[in-house]
This record gives sequence, C-alpha cells and structure tokens, in this order.
Amino acid sequence: MKPVVQCVPNFSEGRDLEKVEKIVAPLKNKEGFKLVSYEPDKDYNRTVVTLLGDPEAMLEPLIKFIGNVTELVDMNVQEGEHPRMGATDVVPFIPIANVTMETCVEMAKKIGSMIADRLKIPVFLYAEAAQKSNRKKLPKIRKGQFEGMKEKIKEPDWTPDFGEAEIHPTAGVTGVGARLPLIAYNIDLDTNDIEVAKKIAAAIRGSSGGYKHIQAGPVYLEERGHVQVTMNILNYKQNPIYRILETVKMEAKRYGVKVPSSEIVGLIPEDTIKRSLKYYFDVERKTFDDAMDFKTLAEYAKSMIGFRDFDELKIIEANVA
Amino acid sequence: MKPVVQCVPNFSEGRDLEKVEKIVAPLKNKEGFKLVSYEPDKDYNRTVVTLLGDPEAMLEPLIKFIGNVTELVDMNVQEGEHPRMGATDVVPFIPIANVTMETCVEMAKKIGSMIADRLKIPVFLYAEAAQKSNRKKLPKIRKGQFEGMKEKIKEPDWTPDFGEAEIHPTAGVTGVGARLPLIAYNIDLDTNDIEVAKKIAAAIRGSSGGYKHIQAGPVYLEERGHVQVTMNILNYKQNPIYRILETVKMEAKRYGVKVPSSEIVGLIPEDTIKRSLKYYFDVERKTFDDAMDFKTLAEYAKSMIGFRDFDELKIIEANVA
Repeated sequence: MKPVVQCVPNFSEGRDLEKVEKIVAPLKNKEGFKLVSYEPDKDYNRTVVTLLGDPEAMLEPLIKFIGNVTELVDMNVQEGEHPRMGATDVVPFIPIANVTMETCVEMAKKIGSMIADRLKIPVFLYAEAAQKSNRKKLPKIRKGQFEGMKEKIKEPDWTPDFGEAEIHPTAGVTGVGARLPLIAYNIDLDTNDIEVAKKIAAAIRGSSGGYKHIQAGPVYLEERGHVQVTMNILNYKQNPIYRILETVKMEAKRYGVKVPSSEIVGLIPEDTIKRSLKYYFDVERKTFDDAMDFKTLAEYAKSMIGFRDFDELKIIEANVA
Repeated sequence: MKPVVQCVPNFSEGRDLEKVEKIVAPLKNKEGFKLVSYEPDKDYNRTVVTLLGDPEAMLEPLIKFIGNVTELVDMNVQEGEHPRMGATDVVPFIPIANVTMETCVEMAKKIGSMIADRLKIPVFLYAEAAQKSNRKKLPKIRKGQFEGMKEKIKEPDWTPDFGEAEIHPTAGVTGVGARLPLIAYNIDLDTNDIEVAKKIAAAIRGSSGGYKHIQAGPVYLEERGHVQVTMNILNYKQNPIYRILETVKMEAKRYGVKVPSSEIVGLIPEDTIKRSLKYYFDVERKTFDDAMDFKTLAEYAKSMIGFRDFDELKIIEANVA
C-alpha cells in the first residue's frame, strides 16, 4: 500500500492573493500527491497549505514552492498577528497511513538539508524530528521571531541543524518537523451550564493533571443551546478518542448530565477512528473487520462512538486521489 | 480545628540502632504532635521518621533531632543503597487537614533558615517550597550526592536557599520541602493475565500519556492469584482516586475483566476519601454529610469505592492523639 503523508507548510503571506497564487503554483496537479487546500489569512498574514500523498513525490515541488516564497516574501517588511521566524515558517510532515513516524523524520531531514543547500536558508528540525531537546517545542525555537533570530542563531544552543549560523537576509529561518496529526474534537453535553463543561475540561486536560496530550476548554453553543468540552488531541495514539469520551461520560454522570454525541472538526486519519471503534467492538465482544470500507467505518463511528455530522469524507484517506 | 501536618524526615543511618534511638529521642512524647513511626532500613542505611500534628510544635524538637543526626552521622564514611546528599537528607512537610500548602511552604522556610543558622548546614528548598525551577524535583538537587555536592554547591545555579555555598564537612546539605501526600493505591483485576494489567497501567500513567500525577505498573499477586494495577498518586487533588478507578474499570471492560476491589497501602488523609466518596454520592443523587465520623467514612469507602482490608485506622487523622 502506498504511503500517505500530510505535509502542512505555513508561509508568511496571506494578504497579496496574487503572490499566494504564484507561490503555490508548483504544488498543483502533481503526480503522487494532492494539494488539498491553501488558506490565506489576512490578520495572520499567513497561508496554511495542505498536501496529501507520497512524501518522496512532494520533495522537488516543495523546493520550488519554498523558492517562490523566498523570492516573493521579504521578512524585513512583513507584519501579521501570527508569530513567525521565516518566510517559509514551518514545514511539518505528518504520518497518516502505511508510513511510520521515522519515515516522516527522514523526510524532514531530507528536505531540511535541501532547503539549506539549495536556498541558503538555515533549518531547525522540530517536534519528533528534533535532534536537540530544546527543539521539541516549536514556540521555543520561534521565540524572538524573525527580528530576534539574527542574534539567536549565533548562540551555541541555537546553531541550526542544517545551513550556516546566519539567517537568510530576507527569508529568515525555517522549521522542518514531523508530528502526529492534531485531532480537533468536541464532546456535546446535554446541559447549558458552562460550569459543568469547565469542570470536566479541567479533569481531562494535561495542563491541570489530566491526559497528557489533551488541550481542552468549555464552550457554549448559542445556536444549539448546549455546552461542549472542546479539545485538541495532540497524540491520538496515547490518548485515543474513546478513552477521552468515556472519561467525559464518567465525569458528566456526577452532574446528572448526558453525553449524547460528539464531533470531529476538519478531517481525521482512518487509524484514529479504527483505534476507538475497536474499543467498542471489544466491549460488545464483536470481531472487528480491519478491512471495512470508509463508508462502513463512518457508519459505525456514528452509531457506536456517537459522532454527529460525520461521513466518510471526514476521513483523510477517503480524499486521496 | 487544629492544623495537622505530616513531617517525614529521612536521615542517613539505618544500621546502628543505638544511634537511631539516640537521634529520634527528642521527638518522643511531645506536646502538639506525635511520633507515628521510625523505620530504619539496613540496605538503604537510612531511617524514615513520620511525625503528625501541629507543625509549629515540631520545630524545636526537629532542630534537636537534626542536631543529633549531625553529631552522630559522618557522611564521609557513610554508605548505603539509597542516594543521599546529607546526614539529614530531606525534611518534607505535607498538609493533611485544616492547613494549606502555603503554610507547609512557610514551615519549610522557617526550619530551613533555622537549620542553616544554628547547625551551619546549607539548605535547598524543594518541591512546592522550591524558589528556583531547577529545585522542583528532588533527584535533580541530589544528583552527584554528598560526594559531588562539595563542588556543585559552588555553581551559580546551585547556591543554597539558606546558608553558605559550602557543605557542612560531615553532614553535607539538607533538602527541606513541602508536598502533597503520596497515595499508594492498588486496583484488583479479576484475571491472572499480566498483559491486561500492563496495558491498563500504560493507559493511565503520566509517563505514557495518561494522568499526570500517576505512576503505575502491573503486578501479579501470587497468593491471591490475580493481577493488580499498582500505583502512586502524587497529587490526589488533580488525580482523585475515583477518576483513576473508573478509568481502570472502563479500560478493563474491553478485556471482559471485572474490577472487584482496590486497596490503600499505608495511611491516607481523610480528604482523599471524601473527594472520591462525593463522586459516588453525586452519581447516586445522595447528599454527602461532610461531618460523618471516621468509622462511617470507612464503611462508605468499602461499600461505595470498593476498598478492601480497610478500616478507620487507615485514615491518617484517626491516628492523631
């Protein structure tokens, strides 16, 4: 089976749409991967690009794309609300299917070295690709931003992983990383009491002692008239959806509150759903068919996990050309 | 209501029982607190002392006790299997009832300053009492042990919180801290399959993505013929017993395994049990009587949480003179 990797480069132009079009052109209609989307944001002055497919096929087009960014974006005059350290700010590789995290780390190293050699932009390897402990977390690398990087890169702790210890005069530096996909997940509570959502969010999120890879908070949905625990799951392997959902149900019980449904925002990998569906199949002593198609998988996700507004097109792999 | 603090000094003599007796003598039969136990360990060559009661009343007796340790233990010739940095290695204060963590931190600072002034032993404040981020975790302070401390204490990062930057020639240095009580808790699984305990332990412990303050592992109980998830709860406020127990039950379900009971090793504060009992009262829509006596509390802990081999004497406060 073909490897499916998601690559989500972020570049520091989100206002001049003509430039954005020129920049992304080399990523369109290529063999082996698909340009799923590119979303310019005016306030951030930043564009998030999503590619899906074979990572090897992405390499040369990505270098052309980063070359275009380098040519068209000058960080000395760039402004926006999103922190940034370079014209091509970050390039993360995310394993989706038939591919290991190790392969994504290798891809990060490969293109990191190409960016430094061919475009003369220093590269920091981050997240799972980090070679030094101070580079695990992106905000730590990016601290000081483009403006501070000129000095920071000369400190012994901040020698780049590829390239010289000197920023590119207009493009700054680029972070290249590998990480698990981030799952945006919301659990509905059958109450309009925000305090209940607040307490449950505090029980499950890592920052207050809960599950390590969960960021969670309370939210009131005006139109639907109930509250939610809204969250990001940063590592769905260590913190699978079913475990979070069942823990929320358990906490909700003490408030006499039911958990009727939950929803996935954006897309998620097939593996995320399978891992959680298996739990419910196990509990019901049913045999799980690992080869079921996307449509069947989506149906089970609705009936057994309780996903609402869900269909097979929310599964990343179902969208690959 | 009187404040109840637990103080658990550890000193580096566990072999010469005559010396141990002389050392602990000033802690016996005092007004305001109780010497609950002192347990010398030959292999560790270390004795763990447990005091319970009013922390103010402990101060002067503790200084006499630490004075005795300083007189009778020479770290230049001391050997044992437990890492140590001083003759009186650590003095932690633990809030049990009617007292805040802040008060325990104040006590730590008070006696820390007394130890430095009167006994000329440099003091590091650790855990909740830490004044610097590198002193939160005791092993980080103790790294290098007594032998390495002579040089380490001269580094700018390791200037002591009280006293000179020079170790006591025979007593080394002392760590004084404040922390929550550690709860030793085991959950019984109705199976002899150690793999099930292993998987469930991995799901709940902080190091593999689970609850932040849980250290957990699998164990097989030969005599009872079943496995357990055995754990330490380092912060029972953020990770209450009921939440861990219910999460374990939820995980056990997929293996078709029942959770018939659980057990507390050693003693626990009343507050630990109350916090968890309240969950089950809430779930059953019953009103919790906060003023119930220890005996009633223990009965409910058995019937509602499922503690086995439990009675009111396992509740710390029930033991205070």
